[in-house]
Amino acid sequence: PPSPLQPPGLPLAPCRSFSNNKIQVELDESSGVAMMKFKSPPVNSLSLEFLTEFSISLEKLENNRACRGVIITSAVPKIFSSGLDITEMSGKSTEHYTEFWRAVQEMWLRLYGSNMVTVAAVNGSSPAGGCLVALSCDYRIMAENPKFSIGLNEAQLGIVAPFWFKDTFVNVVGHRIAERSLQLGSLHPALEAHKLGLVDELVPEEKLMEKAAAVMAQWLALPDHARQLTKTMMRKAVLDRLVAHREEDIKNFVSFISKESIQKSLRMYMEMLKKRK
Amino acid sequence: PPSPLQPPGLPLAPCRSFSNNKIQVELDESSGVAMMKFKSPPVNSLSLEFLTEFSISLEKLENNRACRGVIITSAVPKIFSSGLDITEMSGKSTEHYTEFWRAVQEMWLRLYGSNMVTVAAVNGSSPAGGCLVALSCDYRIMAENPKFSIGLNEAQLGIVAPFWFKDTFVNVVGHRIAERSLQLGSLHPALEAHKLGLVDELVPEEKLMEKAAAVMAQWLALPDHARQLTKTMMRKAVLDRLVAHREEDIKNFVSFISKESIQKSLRMYMEMLKKRK
Amino acid sequence: PPSPLQPPGLPLAPCRSFSNNKIQVELDESSGVAMMKFKSPPVNSLSLEFLTEFSISLEKLENNRACRGVIITSAVPKIFSSGLDITEMSGKSTEHYTEFWRAVQEMWLRLYGSNMVTVAAVNGSSPAGGCLVALSCDYRIMAENPKFSIGLNEAQLGIVAPFWFKDTFVNVVGHRIAERSLQLGSLHPALEAHKLGLVDELVPEEKLMEKAAAVMAQWLALPDHARQLTKTMMRKAVLDRLVAHREEDIKNFVSFISKESIQKSLRMYMEMLKKRK
Repeated sequence: PPSPLQPPGLPLAPCRSFSNNKIQVELDESSGVAMMKFKSPPVNSLSLEFLTEFSISLEKLENNRACRGVIITSAVPKIFSSGLDITEMSGKSTEHYTEFWRAVQEMWLRLYGSNMVTVAAVNGSSPAGGCLVALSCDYRIMAENPKFSIGLNEAQLGIVAPFWFKDTFVNVVGHRIAERSLQLGSLHPALEAHKLGLVDELVPEEKLMEKAAAVMAQWLALPDHARQLTKTMMRKAVLDRLVAHREEDIKNFVSFISKESIQKSLRMYMEMLKKRK
Repeated sequence: PPSPLQPPGLPLAPCRSFSNNKIQVELDESSGVAMMKFKSPPVNSLSLEFLTEFSISLEKLENNRACRGVIITSAVPKIFSSGLDITEMSGKSTEHYTEFWRAVQEMWLRLYGSNMVTVAAVNGSSPAGGCLVALSCDYRIMAENPKFSIGLNEAQLGIVAPFWFKDTFVNVVGHRIAERSLQLGSLHPALEAHKLGLVDELVPEEKLMEKAAAVMAQWLALPDHARQLTKTMMRKAVLDRLVAHREEDIKNFVSFISKESIQKSLRMYMEMLKKRK
Repeated sequence: PPSPLQPPGLPLAPCRSFSNNKIQVELDESSGVAMMKFKSPPVNSLSLEFLTEFSISLEKLENNRACRGVIITSAVPKIFSSGLDITEMSGKSTEHYTEFWRAVQEMWLRLYGSNMVTVAAVNGSSPAGGCLVALSCDYRIMAENPKFSIGLNEAQLGIVAPFWFKDTFVNVVGHRIAERSLQLGSLHPALEAHKLGLVDELVPEEKLMEKAAAVMAQWLALPDHARQLTKTMMRKAVLDRLVAHREEDIKNFVSFISKESIQKSLRMYMEMLKKRK
């Protein structure tokens, strides 16, 4: 926002925001850091609309030479993101499932493969797809609130995390932890998530954004080009694997999710969620 | 066993046991959990007969829809399993070595690839092949007795752990620990094994079975299908590698073990073991 | 050097040293352990001459049946090795860059693939190529001096660690730590390096050589043949990858280092180093 002391007619403060329906993005051009806030109450579900907006926002920032890093956080209290929107996977057409899954892939390809520095400021719970978003960033800071948990809990819903969720997870926590956590569909409370390496750092809730900004400044102290090439070198194998099997992965998802047994599991899960409220 | 109060003519208590020579198996059909106890004194050596019985027992349980999980433990005090039976590898024919090695492979393929939840309740020392059995389960609980140790100590005998022992080990403890531990042929005391991640949990000896049952219940709370697909996703690469190179691996083993220098090492080792007694 | 009490005419003490320009090597034939000391002040830069001498020394020891292990350390106070000599990469011809890079590869192929037990006694700071030397050994012991740091800090100079530096690093610290540390070009103080697993053990500076000798004795207690085959099994995939892409890797390096932007970064870095003095 322009300072009250800003003389009229001069260019505005170097801060550009583009607000959308589901995600608010503010770019501070002086630091090169964008703040991306999920604001899709009640739980920042990754719906088709959300995912599309997410990918477009990432693309805009990626193509903006003034932007070097993104901090991803939530504007909704207590929840970072609840993950993939189950309503998109229940009682819809094959075409819809296909479109939805392609959007999930697209988001991950953009985020995991981003040339920008990406820091997740996890200020609430972050199950399933929400956890994937955090895992795909360069660094994860979480509010040390024992009520917040994070994990790929797909197995609890009777569904299986796709191989690239798994690959991303293994790259972060290693094979043994990933194997156990995925099989149990574990949601790890913040403290445990930190111990397992699932998040890199815990800070008191009120210090989260300050810390995220400090970490981002540390990463941006490096020359972009060498850092980007290094990041690509580390992540290319896992990214390439989805790119090579993208259509097959969509087919697998659509055929799996279309099964009556899976649809039933999802309906039961949604019933349970409704009753909880 | 039927309770003394069991009225005559009614179905027996939901517990079926099939006892064999070397391994005792008891399936509690109400919980879906089988208890598998190695009872081949003095040290539960993995002889050809033991391995065959082990594979057949696993196959029976795998095909029994009433069985969802297996707890593997020892009925012999102080030893979980001493690993491959050296007498099977010493002074025998090429045909015998071939048959023996195929049985070792078979056991591992069944156990590491099992669709059941597998929990190792390691209630004694567990060197070499004994360690492999534990590593191949989904979860390892060990009695916190400083006299019990576990590890792939093949190098100490002058032999080399096969690549799939190594792959299984790396999946559990990571590359650096595996490299050092395999080169040194380390037997890690319980406390150290826990620190390295080789076992997931330590409990006082008298609480071991109780804890194993509790862990099993936690894993069985998940729907089988999603858990099984997840497990397959995590382990398939390593399983496929042996399947693809199985005959080559047998050839390697037979040619290695047939060397006079190796035979000499094994004879010396057996002499040393005899003297220890 | 022969003891003053050595009777004339008798064979010398079982200790042979061959001194070169940059590296001093002393082999104790009774223990089978060579001590290799970098003595190229001021900072043990890995120049073309140093690298050539390093590879030749390793080759000599490798071919000497009396030698089973090498302890690598520095004779220069406070520095283990400062890494690749920047003057070799700045303002030189394409031919020179090619020759230099081949020498870097050669050193790593010999050290990472050595059949001997290799222990790094890190008695000073060890950035970039210096860190690679330590990472390529079987075991790393570091003096617990908070002023000594270690890491692959290439990104700080605007350059990218080659894929085989990365592979070696990932094998030691795992994917997550490697990704972060490489992107940030981190130099980890001894204590942090130990926590991350980058070094295996910290000891007070005055105990370093004693500890290195003790560790070496522990590794040499194993039969060589099984240990060597095990080491090869663990490291072959990463070694083979460079062997298969060696010329391509040279081309990449030469084309990268020849860029005017990179040359400028290196000149600025060298200016900064001069001013520091």
